[in-house]
Amino acid sequence: MRKFSDKATFYKRRTFISNVVKAAGAATFLSIPEYGHSALPAEQGKEYTVQDVIDIILKEIPGAPFNDTVDTIKSGTAGQKVTGIATTMFATVEMIRQAAKMNANFIIAHEPTFYNHRDDPDWVANNSVVKQKQDLLNQHGIVVWRFHDYWHAYRPDGILHGVLNKTGWINYYRPQEGGLKIPVTSLKKIIEHLKSSLGINYVRFIGEPDQRCEKIALLPGAWGGQRQVSVVENEKPDLLIVGELQEWETAEYIRDTRALGSKTALIVLGHAVSEEPGMEWLVEWLQPKIPELKVSHLPSGNPFKWV
Amino acid sequence: MRKFSDKATFYKRRTFISNVVKAAGAATFLSIPEYGHSALPAEQGKEYTVQDVIDIILKEIPGAPFNDTVDTIKSGTAGQKVTGIATTMFATVEMIRQAAKMNANFIIAHEPTFYNHRDDPDWVANNSVVKQKQDLLNQHGIVVWRFHDYWHAYRPDGILHGVLNKTGWINYYRPQEGGLKIPVTSLKKIIEHLKSSLGINYVRFIGEPDQRCEKIALLPGAWGGQRQVSVVENEKPDLLIVGELQEWETAEYIRDTRALGSKTALIVLGHAVSEEPGMEWLVEWLQPKIPELKVSHLPSGNPFKWV
Repeated sequence: MRKFSDKATFYKRRTFISNVVKAAGAATFLSIPEYGHSALPAEQGKEYTVQDVIDIILKEIPGAPFNDTVDTIKSGTAGQKVTGIATTMFATVEMIRQAAKMNANFIIAHEPTFYNHRDDPDWVANNSVVKQKQDLLNQHGIVVWRFHDYWHAYRPDGILHGVLNKTGWINYYRPQEGGLKIPVTSLKKIIEHLKSSLGINYVRFIGEPDQRCEKIALLPGAWGGQRQVSVVENEKPDLLIVGELQEWETAEYIRDTRALGSKTALIVLGHAVSEEPGMEWLVEWLQPKIPELKVSHLPSGNPFKWV
Repeated sequence: MRKFSDKATFYKRRTFISNVVKAAGAATFLSIPEYGHSALPAEQGKEYTVQDVIDIILKEIPGAPFNDTVDTIKSGTAGQKVTGIATTMFATVEMIRQAAKMNANFIIAHEPTFYNHRDDPDWVANNSVVKQKQDLLNQHGIVVWRFHDYWHAYRPDGILHGVLNKTGWINYYRPQEGGLKIPVTSLKKIIEHLKSSLGINYVRFIGEPDQRCEKIALLPGAWGGQRQVSVVENEKPDLLIVGELQEWETAEYIRDTRALGSKTALIVLGHAVSEEPGMEWLVEWLQPKIPELKVSHLPSGNPFKWV
């Protein structure tokens, strides 16, 4: 999910992103292979512990380390030697098994491993699934580290950058104008583009398929209703795109604002698929910093079927 | 949404419901017309204020009035004379307009009016939609009262009872065995039944369409991940049915428990449509207590399109 401590921070970050994007130019971001680890020759003898890798990452994050963060080791120890790295949205049971098969004993996951924001294993007492998952991780000797707060704090925000790249919208990003400004496009065409570029099968939306959209607020993940509604109130976009929402908050707000004459539409992408490109981009970002280790992306993907 | 203060209360409530259901028998619950107000002759001269109606309702609620409850008047005053009553899930702008057309100046809504649980109008500062909605309510002289905590505290739980009735599952309800026990049915058939009986166009689910289900945990509304996961841990149902969830909590838990060999499936109905039958049943329940007033149900319905 995506949480900001306050709006001032939020806007500061967006401004910062803008400058970084301008400075970097678009050409840098054109191509990310599906499993984007560079095939650089391994330096024999060079070894990394989990902590070494974390330190290499945190060196790049403004303000790191943070005093209060959910980005902690969820399983295993910092001193373990790393055999390979898998990045993913959720360190699901299936992702753990795939990582083990690839001989990647370090999973960097954006979201919780144990089904609650703080990864408290006792969030539900005697949770048998937590226990089995811990056993599975121990059995394979896999360390899981969450990389959420830090990746969002990177400049540009690692998740947003991955999504902008994957959607091909990076040149349309105008943070100082409140979001994206795309060539005028129908809501229907935007939905088709998001589904195809992000590999999404179904989305929920509110709006008229033929309505024209130009100004877009793009909020991957689960910002929470208060932030989502604030962005619409402040920026009045034609379209709000979110990963996940609470229905009684943002969805009802959008339904009402439209009934009152606003044309702001809403697309709900799904949480995992909305942020996955950011964990895919992490491979490209991290691999050159640790050429001796193989870094791969495992897409945990959408958990639902739709019918 | 649906929130329990603790698990002990939850199970006490379910046991209580069981006894009430057994005592009442199923025949009582067979038929609820779409707009279920009885056409009883009005007693000329008998008038009710909003507070009169609230008092009549609260007389039936165990433990009422509660010290801490979200069930407060959101717009207008308790002393206003009631011309007619509309029940709904969400007092949306559209429902307000429909109520005004029907000359119903008292809306009883299950969920928030101003997009947050406590209906704090300053949840988002200077919220233009809150302001316009307040103006609309004032313009039509409509009082909105939330009926959430009390309706869930009624025995049987007013929302759950409405859903059990509408799905035709009331005779399968076995709270002391942890939920519903239906004749063995495929997940696919259950989804078809829920869509047709509750008038739902699309659902999200996790599971195999052909898997057989017998024991069902039915949790309309948004109980929150902690409660939803607790129910699965404690009851090990074949199927968990919820109104709404947070994807990184319950959905990921279900995905993992299945990967670990459990067969618990999940259906996500959508928040509004999952609880709507409870506000529909309220009409049948309330109308005989205030025969001089017309009580109608206005279904606020699902806010989304799916594609």
